[in-house]
Amino acid sequence: MNWLDDIRWDRDGLVPVIAQELGSNDVLMFAYMNREALAATAARGQAVYWSRSRQRLWHKGEESGHFQTVHDIRLDCDNDVVLLKVTQEGHQPGIACHTGRHSCFFQRYDDGQWTTVDPVLKDPGSIYR
Amino acid sequence: MNWLDDIRWDRDGLVPVIAQELGSNDVLMFAYMNREALAATAARGQAVYWSRSRQRLWHKGEESGHFQTVHDIRLDCDNDVVLLKVTQEGHQPGIACHTGRHSCFFQRYDDGQWTTVDPVLKDPGSIYR
Repeated sequence: MNWLDDIRWDRDGLVPVIAQELGSNDVLMFAYMNREALAATAARGQAVYWSRSRQRLWHKGEESGHFQTVHDIRLDCDNDVVLLKVTQEGHQPGIACHTGRHSCFFQRYDDGQWTTVDPVLKDPGSIYR
Repeated sequence: MNWLDDIRWDRDGLVPVIAQELGSNDVLMFAYMNREALAATAARGQAVYWSRSRQRLWHKGEESGHFQTVHDIRLDCDNDVVLLKVTQEGHQPGIACHTGRHSCFFQRYDDGQWTTVDPVLKDPGSIYR
C-alpha cells in the first residue's frame, strides 16, 4: 500500500505517534507504530500501537476498555511523525494514561523540578483487572 | 541539575518533544532535544531543539524569526516525552512549519493516500532570507 511507503520509518521500523483528543485538542499520549499497526489503525478506525516494551501490537484499550476511536490521521512535513485525532472511549472524561489520568503529560516543570499537576480520575487497580 | 536527570534520554541522548500552541491547543511540530537544549529552553523561555540533521543546537526562529515562547513544559508518565505549550511568534497566525504553514501536520490520510489540507500562509522563500 503506497501511503505506508510514503512514511519514513525509523531504523527500528517505527514512526512516533501523537494522540490528540478531538474537541479539547488535549495531547493525550505519545507512542509508536510499525507498518502493521498503522495499517490496522486505518482499517479498523481504532488506535493500534506497537508496544516497544512488549514487542507486540498493542490495541489500545484491549485490557482497560479505554479504546481510541480515530477520526483523523495526519502526517508531518518530513513524513516521519503521525498525529491522530481521537475520542478516548470507556470513561468520561477520557482516561488515556495507565496511571488513571486524562493525559500522560501530567508532570509540569516548575522551578527546577517536575510537579504532578493533574488528578487521577480512576484507580489503575480497578482499570486493569 | 536533578530535573534533567529525571528524564529517560534515548540511546542518542535525546528526548522527543511535541510543541502545542497555547490557546488553540493545535499541535504545531515535533522535534528532539538533548540535555543542553532542554536546559536552554527552560532558562531562556524560548524553544531550543537539537537538530538531528545538522547535529547542533537549533534555536527555533534563529533564521525565520519565528521563535517559540515557552509557557509550560510537561513530561509524560514514562519520563521520556516532553510537551511544550508555546506561542508561535513572528507571524499571525503562527507559522511553525518550514513549508510556511501553521502546523507541520498538514497531510491527512484519506482513502489510501495523503492529501495536503492546510494552506501555506507565507512563501518559505521569503521566510528564510
